[in-house]
Amino acid sequence: MNPAQSRLLHAVRAALGDKVVIDDPAAIEPWLHDWRGRYHGRTAAILAPDSTAAVATIVRLAAEHRVPLVPQGGNTSMVGGATPPADGSALILSLRRLNHIRQVDPAANLAIVEAGVILADLHDAALAAGRRFPLTLGARGSATLGGLASTNAGGTQVLRFGTMRSLVAGVEAVLPDGQIHDGLTALKKDNRGYDLDHLLVGAEGTLGVITALAVRLVPAIAARAVAWVGLASPHAALALLRQLEAATQAVESFELLPAESLAAVLRHIPATRAPLAGLHPWHVLIEAVTTDPAAEPPAQVLERLLAPALAADLAADAVIAASEAQAEAFWRIRDSLSESERALGPAAQHDISVPVARMPDFMLDAAAACDARFPGTHASGFGHLGDGNVHFHVRAPAGMDPAHWYGDLAPVVTAFVHDLVTAAGGSISAEHGIGQMKLAELQRLAGPARMAALRAIKSGLDPHNLLNPGKLVALARAPATP
Amino acid sequence: MNPAQSRLLHAVRAALGDKVVIDDPAAIEPWLHDWRGRYHGRTAAILAPDSTAAVATIVRLAAEHRVPLVPQGGNTSMVGGATPPADGSALILSLRRLNHIRQVDPAANLAIVEAGVILADLHDAALAAGRRFPLTLGARGSATLGGLASTNAGGTQVLRFGTMRSLVAGVEAVLPDGQIHDGLTALKKDNRGYDLDHLLVGAEGTLGVITALAVRLVPAIAARAVAWVGLASPHAALALLRQLEAATQAVESFELLPAESLAAVLRHIPATRAPLAGLHPWHVLIEAVTTDPAAEPPAQVLERLLAPALAADLAADAVIAASEAQAEAFWRIRDSLSESERALGPAAQHDISVPVARMPDFMLDAAAACDARFPGTHASGFGHLGDGNVHFHVRAPAGMDPAHWYGDLAPVVTAFVHDLVTAAGGSISAEHGIGQMKLAELQRLAGPARMAALRAIKSGLDPHNLLNPGKLVALARAPATP
Repeated sequence: MNPAQSRLLHAVRAALGDKVVIDDPAAIEPWLHDWRGRYHGRTAAILAPDSTAAVATIVRLAAEHRVPLVPQGGNTSMVGGATPPADGSALILSLRRLNHIRQVDPAANLAIVEAGVILADLHDAALAAGRRFPLTLGARGSATLGGLASTNAGGTQVLRFGTMRSLVAGVEAVLPDGQIHDGLTALKKDNRGYDLDHLLVGAEGTLGVITALAVRLVPAIAARAVAWVGLASPHAALALLRQLEAATQAVESFELLPAESLAAVLRHIPATRAPLAGLHPWHVLIEAVTTDPAAEPPAQVLERLLAPALAADLAADAVIAASEAQAEAFWRIRDSLSESERALGPAAQHDISVPVARMPDFMLDAAAACDARFPGTHASGFGHLGDGNVHFHVRAPAGMDPAHWYGDLAPVVTAFVHDLVTAAGGSISAEHGIGQMKLAELQRLAGPARMAALRAIKSGLDPHNLLNPGKLVALARAPATP
Repeated sequence: MNPAQSRLLHAVRAALGDKVVIDDPAAIEPWLHDWRGRYHGRTAAILAPDSTAAVATIVRLAAEHRVPLVPQGGNTSMVGGATPPADGSALILSLRRLNHIRQVDPAANLAIVEAGVILADLHDAALAAGRRFPLTLGARGSATLGGLASTNAGGTQVLRFGTMRSLVAGVEAVLPDGQIHDGLTALKKDNRGYDLDHLLVGAEGTLGVITALAVRLVPAIAARAVAWVGLASPHAALALLRQLEAATQAVESFELLPAESLAAVLRHIPATRAPLAGLHPWHVLIEAVTTDPAAEPPAQVLERLLAPALAADLAADAVIAASEAQAEAFWRIRDSLSESERALGPAAQHDISVPVARMPDFMLDAAAACDARFPGTHASGFGHLGDGNVHFHVRAPAGMDPAHWYGDLAPVVTAFVHDLVTAAGGSISAEHGIGQMKLAELQRLAGPARMAALRAIKSGLDPHNLLNPGKLVALARAPATP
């Protein structure tokens, strides 16, 4: 612990009591690395306030003592965004004790939640009020709303209601100088200068610490249907999606995966089975919902719309889950993709997007280009076709030493993939953010105008580089120790 | 013209030719004041480039010579946002020659338009492609897309598709140092750092000059119906809106006006007549549309849904336009409100929002409070009830000298109204922006956290305060002359 940190902890204890400082190494340890085990940090203490006012006090004192803070929610970042620096220069600011749902207002279709509320808990609270919070993802049992907003998270239900950005109606945050920005009053129109809420969403805790959110709710689901479709190509999948979209607004998920991803799940995840009897090169999971109990049941909608696709050979085979348990089983396959891929060995993983219409070509062309360029590796993608966003993974050659792969080869592979994405007008981070993992690649590929603007915004709002330093954008200036 | 301006004009002529510099006073004069005649500026020249590259050259040279620029589109600002400073320190940068519609892509539901494209021209181009650009407002014949995005404009069709912010899928802009930010590739997911596009939308040209936009299109209208409803109160109007929204997604406009606003139109606008025979204290214009020719016709939807409202006395009387000509006549009344109010004499006008559910109370209570506090004045509001946004006008006492009103009394009235809005958790600028008109009031009411953040962003991105200085946020530092 450096002297500035000691002084800060002393001041924090004096202002907020001992309970807010966690310095037992055993209690700190689980929060020092990301869940994938890629990034390992060090810190002298976790600060765990339980109110917005206490967060403001901590941030103000940290600014005074020039001690960097790493905001942390559920610690489910895919890019090392919540892992403290390895040199121990920063303290962790945990938002997990800010876990109250302040209000659920079904008439206004809004909820006010604190940053540490876990996604699954908001799902439950909305449901109890006859509403729904539509964003969901595999980590819903541990990801927090503050982290989801700070990373503009996506997930498997973006098709209809968008990413977190579309669902955030207002932000409460502590700015780097310790002042509280209160944007929670959800106004449908508000043109009082630059949109701070939109700036904080996706800023990965580098411009302010989100302490609470006003989020939009949508009508509760009256009925859902989940279908599994086997088909020949990503092109067929996109054509099928376009047909469905033209005929109905009921489709909320459209997740594409290749045969090999399904095979990996069946091999490595217990109690899973193939939804279809035959073998197909590509598969799609489709979820359709209705919010109106009197409307045509979604199973019937899917049956009606899939029949002509089967007749026209756009789809090779399809099955609609006959029960909620079977629907859950289909979803379990989708939600287990990341876990089962890990069982296949080391891989370079890329969360990328291109314009939707270009995605089928991109998936095939990029995989072929990777396989040819890096003999022994194997590339494939799966994910959110309708969002133009897939997770594009390149597996290491069989038997390769993981240290050699991650240290030497994977960065070359990643640069190659990112160059392909950039050439296709795409993004090297569709939904996971930049964190520390993609910092250098962003700098390499974003272009000087964007990088200059990111740096100008960061240094304008956080001139001492104290909030989540070394994530999203690197400033020339290191955090200063007074 | 100061020496820095001379040097800049010389450099611009050398780089881009003489045609880009307009210095004939007669050609400049129409662009020196706002259309309401409230703000009067001076400038030595208008720079009128016709390409993004030329805009970049001008902004780069202006930065080099430290000459402030005032970006200008159709010059229809309601808050003096496009009027140059009175001291002649800035040049006007006109975007009107960047007026190409680069692309209309009906399959992707996107168009790429340059900043100087006039709104009505985009409406026509979308229609020709079987699509629709849903935002519209009274100034559609002169307002440009760049200005609409820079001010996050709203208008009369926000209910369903939102303000410009919701319709902008990507931004191309020249940043204050002359670099080009190209965000036109419309990705559905992109988490590469701070959202520059959202930052530029609504920034009123103070952070960058928008040169082109990717905008969303929606399906073309197959049929529309326009109804006029007489009712007892804003509360009845909001209850009626909630009933309609629960039953249909067809309602795209819901505009509220008091009897006196209708009377002013009938008195001052030629060839207008009252839609209903009787007298009612409040009126609503409702537009319902369908995009599916096979769906229930919107006139029938409105008839079916208004009947129970009439039976329950929620509405006192209603008529559905029997022809497109009658529908246009109803809309003409709504679109003439501002013009007819001007005929009633000087007024203090406020473009304000509060949470939708609070608006009916606010309209009545705030009007009563104003009338009581400022004897002889008269307050009333009209506008976009469903957005929680009304235009709240306080008329000067009859016969008062306009100079006395605008100079002495109106600012006091405005501060009083803005205090009421702030107490109700609302915004002093719902859709018109800050410009120069609301600069001091924003500073008075925004709170120190927001003001510090606005200043930090502005000075981070435009450290020499060269883009639209004196609008939206005042920096302590005046534009520097080298």
